[in-house]
Amino acid sequence: MARWEPNARGRLEQAAMDLFTEHGFEQVTVAEIAARAGLTERTFYRHFSDKREVLFPDASPLYQGLTDALAAAPDTATPIEAVAAVLDTTAAFFTDRHRFSRRRQAVIAANAELREREAVKLASLADALASGLRERGVAEPAASLAAEAGIAVFKVAHLQWVADDDPGDLGALMRTALGELRTTLSP
Amino acid sequence: MARWEPNARGRLEQAAMDLFTEHGFEQVTVAEIAARAGLTERTFYRHFSDKREVLFPDASPLYQGLTDALAAAPDTATPIEAVAAVLDTTAAFFTDRHRFSRRRQAVIAANAELREREAVKLASLADALASGLRERGVAEPAASLAAEAGIAVFKVAHLQWVADDDPGDLGALMRTALGELRTTLSP
Repeated sequence: MARWEPNARGRLEQAAMDLFTEHGFEQVTVAEIAARAGLTERTFYRHFSDKREVLFPDASPLYQGLTDALAAAPDTATPIEAVAAVLDTTAAFFTDRHRFSRRRQAVIAANAELREREAVKLASLADALASGLRERGVAEPAASLAAEAGIAVFKVAHLQWVADDDPGDLGALMRTALGELRTTLSP
Repeated sequence: MARWEPNARGRLEQAAMDLFTEHGFEQVTVAEIAARAGLTERTFYRHFSDKREVLFPDASPLYQGLTDALAAAPDTATPIEAVAAVLDTTAAFFTDRHRFSRRRQAVIAANAELREREAVKLASLADALASGLRERGVAEPAASLAAEAGIAVFKVAHLQWVADDDPGDLGALMRTALGELRTTLSP
């Protein structure tokens, strides 16, 4: 019978991030993460399928948020306005996650396989966003270009956000980055 | 002693692509590729380290072309003008490769692991491009944004190019896509 463990998931996340930061992702075992959190391996596996899932949790809420934001955008929204609405929604997923995101980024930056996983995740999000725009009736290549631009803005603003000691507003950083992308592309 | 085999690399590429197309990438062995090309496995391994390298050859000429194009761009070039110069150079790598690129894209599209490899390759190119722009004195986040925009344009135009029965001009498609990205981003 599973014992009730207060905030087991949060404790496991924090223990994992402490250990990844101290020893590097590859060196850390699930047994060590559970021990550091004062929990059993069995409890770990009730929350995560493996240690990588601490860094790359189930993305379906993010995809659902993306779909919902596109559905909520007015019919009159241009492709890039719809993308901006998605970015605003995405920012909400990161509220109160600055310290976690910052440490996560450092762990990922130190490991080639994790960097590749992050690149694949962002490419999948771009594909989902392009697909959602096509469902709104946006033609190609505008759908793919707007989606790729949105993910580029997310990537750059997210890196700025985690690099900052003071947790600023990720949504504001993304809106600024979108403006900077426009300026950069101006002939 | 290695026998001289006329156009061994080209024959191996074509045999591999035929077999990947017929049976799927995963089902094909190096022995089968060599046999189809009328060559030995030993000859295969003189040209490729494994079957995946047929689809993802050494990218160092591409990186060198990128670096050279940035070096050749005038000091007065804006970041996006420098990126456009890199895209023009990149197009030259694909001249006479339309049939190969088209079949390669179909093989990659059918295999999740290969799609991930392609995403990682494009992300690496974006990083290299951003790094080259910073070396030209472009500040962040403009360097990363211009680089991501350039890779987005490459990705979208390359997909259009391989989808087209008639091998058009990849460079022209990229210039058009860059213009469309500008339009898409206009408020």
